[in-house]
Amino acid sequence: MSRFFSKNYSSLVPYVPGEQPKHLSSFVKLNTNESPFPPSDKALAYAAENTRPFNLYSDPECTELVKQLSKTYGVEPENVLCGNGSDEILYFAFAAFCSDDQPAMFADITYGFYPVFAQMARVPYKIIPLKDDLSMDLDAFWQNGAAFIANPNAPTGIALSAAEIESFVSAYSDRIVVVDEAYVDFGAESCVELTKKYDNLLVVQTFSKSRSMAGARLGFAIGNKELIGDLKTLKYSLNPYNINSYTAALGVGTLLDQGYTDKNCSVIIENRQYASEKLKELGFEMTDSKANFIFAKHKNMSGEEIYLKLKENKVLVRHFGLDRIKDYNRITVGSRAQMDSLAAALEKILK
Amino acid sequence: MSRFFSKNYSSLVPYVPGEQPKHLSSFVKLNTNESPFPPSDKALAYAAENTRPFNLYSDPECTELVKQLSKTYGVEPENVLCGNGSDEILYFAFAAFCSDDQPAMFADITYGFYPVFAQMARVPYKIIPLKDDLSMDLDAFWQNGAAFIANPNAPTGIALSAAEIESFVSAYSDRIVVVDEAYVDFGAESCVELTKKYDNLLVVQTFSKSRSMAGARLGFAIGNKELIGDLKTLKYSLNPYNINSYTAALGVGTLLDQGYTDKNCSVIIENRQYASEKLKELGFEMTDSKANFIFAKHKNMSGEEIYLKLKENKVLVRHFGLDRIKDYNRITVGSRAQMDSLAAALEKILK
Repeated sequence: MSRFFSKNYSSLVPYVPGEQPKHLSSFVKLNTNESPFPPSDKALAYAAENTRPFNLYSDPECTELVKQLSKTYGVEPENVLCGNGSDEILYFAFAAFCSDDQPAMFADITYGFYPVFAQMARVPYKIIPLKDDLSMDLDAFWQNGAAFIANPNAPTGIALSAAEIESFVSAYSDRIVVVDEAYVDFGAESCVELTKKYDNLLVVQTFSKSRSMAGARLGFAIGNKELIGDLKTLKYSLNPYNINSYTAALGVGTLLDQGYTDKNCSVIIENRQYASEKLKELGFEMTDSKANFIFAKHKNMSGEEIYLKLKENKVLVRHFGLDRIKDYNRITVGSRAQMDSLAAALEKILK
Repeated sequence: MSRFFSKNYSSLVPYVPGEQPKHLSSFVKLNTNESPFPPSDKALAYAAENTRPFNLYSDPECTELVKQLSKTYGVEPENVLCGNGSDEILYFAFAAFCSDDQPAMFADITYGFYPVFAQMARVPYKIIPLKDDLSMDLDAFWQNGAAFIANPNAPTGIALSAAEIESFVSAYSDRIVVVDEAYVDFGAESCVELTKKYDNLLVVQTFSKSRSMAGARLGFAIGNKELIGDLKTLKYSLNPYNINSYTAALGVGTLLDQGYTDKNCSVIIENRQYASEKLKELGFEMTDSKANFIFAKHKNMSGEEIYLKLKENKVLVRHFGLDRIKDYNRITVGSRAQMDSLAAALEKILK
């Protein structure tokens, strides 16, 4: 820390992203929930043809991308905002909708970035523990505040139904609810449709998981025009040209080839089933994940030991040290071959 | 504004970027200081070969790009941070180095985003008026605070020498000085070398102007390891994967082809001279710009009228309504053909 660092941030502890090994080929990488599939050829061809020349600034409004997203999701362009990944949008939501009067609220076990976003935005937050079975305890979100709900939740993979979220959103209409649907395309119910009915609901999604664009950086929010307007106010106060021209075009191309995304999601759901059965045979217990990862613990070996031994065997998974979940590892569901490598490594370790 | 918008930002007025016309070909675009040249073929070829697969997250450390920047600028990798454009880095600098105890300080006429960054970061700021000749009044920055100095300044184009900045930085060693060198490659002196000597100096640059990458979004900061560490703390608390994989590779490719950048900068400097002479012949007065723009006023016609009439004639320039500079327009220096179109349009308007 330099002698000039602001006291506003002197106790800020940044988020620690999953390891990104420099030499990709040396690991089976199952630690950051990426897609094993590249963007579609059609999407890449579209981007090659439609990227604005790089010497010119990108379109700050992402006009074409917003138009295509609004078509895909059946909303108006004024209901959509794009961001440089969903992380940026989530940060804007913490800054825009939380304050001393309206603290952020989120689960104890959820996306680990939420408390960091709150500190970065200099707003207070309250922690709402998950139930004993690691499912979201919506009733405990009764307090005043802005609710941030990952659905499916991470790293548990457990999902609420859209009906459960709707009953919460409608019961607490004086409170904003942000539903983080980073993993929704792998079998959970989206709340996008509900944003037309409730002005206190914002849905955030990403192109990083189901749409194979983690490295291109693209996320979006869908909600009431006024909520989107608030997020835009912050975007235009930090970095108006937040999305590069190639990514904006690749996003459009990806949406135009929705069949490719749908097919990939089906494969991941199949592989999740396939890997879950393998893991069960090896003595693992796991949550009912609706995401592109499995959250699993073993009866005979600690979560940390499994993580370390897998790493020795060149398989990267994600282990979180938090007390309630330290027995678990979060394992990305990848290709069939990756799942076989995982099973083989686990078999060796547990022998 | 929604009923949920935080009181922290209720009076925030976002930055208004220059117009980005949807149909590029219909305008001679001289309003946002872009390069008229595309990235070099060598850089594009390098990026095509070296972009990490898009389904994987980008490297949050931008290892290769940071390495190449440190080679290019003769510093260590620990002295470099990359950002999603220099705007993002400038925001981090306002948030990291300003607070109630240490207000931001900047000129009345300078990059118009500075007061917005300060408001977004929720820190106070003081305005230091330029001298009557529109040059920076460094002596007036005597007060306690964090100094933000655009050099060359925008939209005036007037530059301080590195020696002038050094004498300020060394005289006020208990104060951080951020030098925003977005336009430095067009004839001004960089302070990068001074960052090795002074731990209170941070230099911010961009690939958007001299390096033809405005649409790819890439900026960087160079400074003392501790200052860079503070900025990293904020980056990892907002958006660790802030730079997409293609941009990171294109940045490396661009640095490897420095000769192309140097040649383009020489052409812009020549064209600035060429256009300045044309404008003088037409009755304009202008500042001594060291940037890729000309800041010019006419003896017989108001700045706003010139702006509007140029727009009617399909030439976009930038007019700022601020009282001290409302007679001026900021005109990007582009290709020789663009400068000829500008001169022809002005000739018609002034006839």
